[in-house]
Amino acid sequence: MIYFDNSATTKPFEEVMTAYQKAAIQFFANPSSLHYLGSDAERLLMRTRQAVAEQLRIETEEVVFTSGGTEGNNLAIKGIAFQHQTRGKHLITSSVEHPSVLEVFKELEQNGFEVSYASVDHSGKVDPEEIKSLIRKDTILISIMSVNNELGTIQPIEEIGDIAGMYPKVFFHVDHVQGIGKVPLSLKKAKVDLCSISGHKIHGLKGTGILYVRKGVLLSPLFHGGGHESNRRSGTENLPGMVAFAKALRKIKEKEKKQLNELIHLRHHLINHLNVMEEVIINSPLSGAPHIINVSVPGIKPEVMIHALAKKDIFVSAKSACSSKQPDVSSVLKACNLKENVTKSAIRISLSYSSTIEEADLFLEEFNSAIRYLEKGR
Amino acid sequence: MIYFDNSATTKPFEEVMTAYQKAAIQFFANPSSLHYLGSDAERLLMRTRQAVAEQLRIETEEVVFTSGGTEGNNLAIKGIAFQHQTRGKHLITSSVEHPSVLEVFKELEQNGFEVSYASVDHSGKVDPEEIKSLIRKDTILISIMSVNNELGTIQPIEEIGDIAGMYPKVFFHVDHVQGIGKVPLSLKKAKVDLCSISGHKIHGLKGTGILYVRKGVLLSPLFHGGGHESNRRSGTENLPGMVAFAKALRKIKEKEKKQLNELIHLRHHLINHLNVMEEVIINSPLSGAPHIINVSVPGIKPEVMIHALAKKDIFVSAKSACSSKQPDVSSVLKACNLKENVTKSAIRISLSYSSTIEEADLFLEEFNSAIRYLEKGR
Repeated sequence: MIYFDNSATTKPFEEVMTAYQKAAIQFFANPSSLHYLGSDAERLLMRTRQAVAEQLRIETEEVVFTSGGTEGNNLAIKGIAFQHQTRGKHLITSSVEHPSVLEVFKELEQNGFEVSYASVDHSGKVDPEEIKSLIRKDTILISIMSVNNELGTIQPIEEIGDIAGMYPKVFFHVDHVQGIGKVPLSLKKAKVDLCSISGHKIHGLKGTGILYVRKGVLLSPLFHGGGHESNRRSGTENLPGMVAFAKALRKIKEKEKKQLNELIHLRHHLINHLNVMEEVIINSPLSGAPHIINVSVPGIKPEVMIHALAKKDIFVSAKSACSSKQPDVSSVLKACNLKENVTKSAIRISLSYSSTIEEADLFLEEFNSAIRYLEKGR
Repeated sequence: MIYFDNSATTKPFEEVMTAYQKAAIQFFANPSSLHYLGSDAERLLMRTRQAVAEQLRIETEEVVFTSGGTEGNNLAIKGIAFQHQTRGKHLITSSVEHPSVLEVFKELEQNGFEVSYASVDHSGKVDPEEIKSLIRKDTILISIMSVNNELGTIQPIEEIGDIAGMYPKVFFHVDHVQGIGKVPLSLKKAKVDLCSISGHKIHGLKGTGILYVRKGVLLSPLFHGGGHESNRRSGTENLPGMVAFAKALRKIKEKEKKQLNELIHLRHHLINHLNVMEEVIINSPLSGAPHIINVSVPGIKPEVMIHALAKKDIFVSAKSACSSKQPDVSSVLKACNLKENVTKSAIRISLSYSSTIEEADLFLEEFNSAIRYLEKGR
């Protein structure tokens, strides 16, 4: 099996499963319980929070555990919008964000907020100068992803952070779901106020994630209740999920440190070979994230290609899994002003640190065969 | 170890762990992915949804998977409030609900909603006639828990459902987190529109749960994004968590069928023996849920008793785990108009289907010794 759909989700690391299992059984008590089973669980929770904070070079109280990227993005954006709406109701994002960001903004537009959508160039990149020009007196939030989930385009987060930093009333949220462990980002240096990360994209578990909330940033919670996570996210803590998240984060950071160059090399190897296939158009920028390559084969529908490759036990995807059941056209590629035959035929190849050159070569061979075969069938 | 804190959380069933592990590894793909790994995962998701629906005798599209009870309660209450606020902004609940219900109502009061809090009698029971008298032309929601988490009091859900059913504009939400698997409730017969259930209270996993949403009931989602769960809860599905939830639900329902009488007997055994202890006041109604007994030992602080018992490896709790870090007094017991020396000294003993008579007897012995010992120390 060649699994090149790691941007949709990843296979959990074995160590993650083991850590989860152990915590779920040995530390099953409610961390809020007053007896020592409860305090043992609470101590593990504190250590876990600390481990996450250390990996991200942030403070422990800046970690809010969530159920994943979608919750993180919703909590960040709605949380800031509702908490600070008396300051202003203008928000800025880009036209290529993930549905869990874009749909939140659409919802807020229904609730009296005004949203400006920054445009992107052909490679999906936003222009910090445009972001700057969109800032108004009533702007309270800028939300930009670090890495585009379909193209792998890396956004100029530090530049945008510098701009946001000049406006003390403007909060800066980064959807870092595709970036974490692959595209380095210093939250402090980039002056990020809020940052969403998901566990299942880094070989952690589904239903886990965190939202980084910079110290001093107030946000209205989505879940009210027992006041967990310092009143920012109520609900009995999913301690085994948190432990699993911390483990996945540590492992992916290790791999980023040791294997990032290998991954970059692997991507270039693929791009070089895809480049020479006449029928193939490469949509991702060369300088994109090391794990994502988006290509189009005009005239061949993505689902047809996906099924052809799956027959050979090779797994790739069409655009975002989160919008894959919607009609063909990728709205991200459309926002990049790419031609319709390109936006309608995009395939995403997404690698992991376990992907190998051998897998890449086999993929290239089968991809090439599939193109020949499917072109004949047209 | 005698674990009598099952209302705070439960130890996961072994079968639940196994099912989780298997799904997390073998069905790790994103159910939204178009290739067959994705469709295999999606099929498992559909089967899981169906299994949950069958257990609850509801339809598959009425199941919304959540991250737990707090999310379910928030989604139900805010979801109805925001979706139907043009109809009216009056809401009804009781004074003894869980923090994940009460705090949501408090938040809604800040947002222009008006909330009526039904009172309770000494045993924590609401009066359906009072609920009826609170209904106004602008009432859109009644939210009442099936089983009180501190006292075990069983609320007259069917009677309230009958009343709510007479007002087609009024939705009826039931927090069934403490009731499921212990206190039978037919969602259809009781005319329930929304019902929250949590996985970790029934030997499932933390971070899992469902909200039952009756067909035709529209609610505003908390998470916007890819439109998962029929647009009611976006976010990559936590399939292993769902599978684990379905497994826990099936097992607890089996136990309810086979062992409910045993559990009732065990509770009566405990109550009978506690009744003869002079220092002990039993706060729970005799006809309460089969797994909860709330007692007070006036003059002895709950945390002191909890620690004394924990030294003997016996684990009980003071009021709700979700508010246990707050000061002594139980707001639930206070709402029952119990005396201060009772509300300040309440201990909750919460059983599971694995609790035994031997454990109960050992508990009684150690509880008795602890009272003697602690009374001397005063």
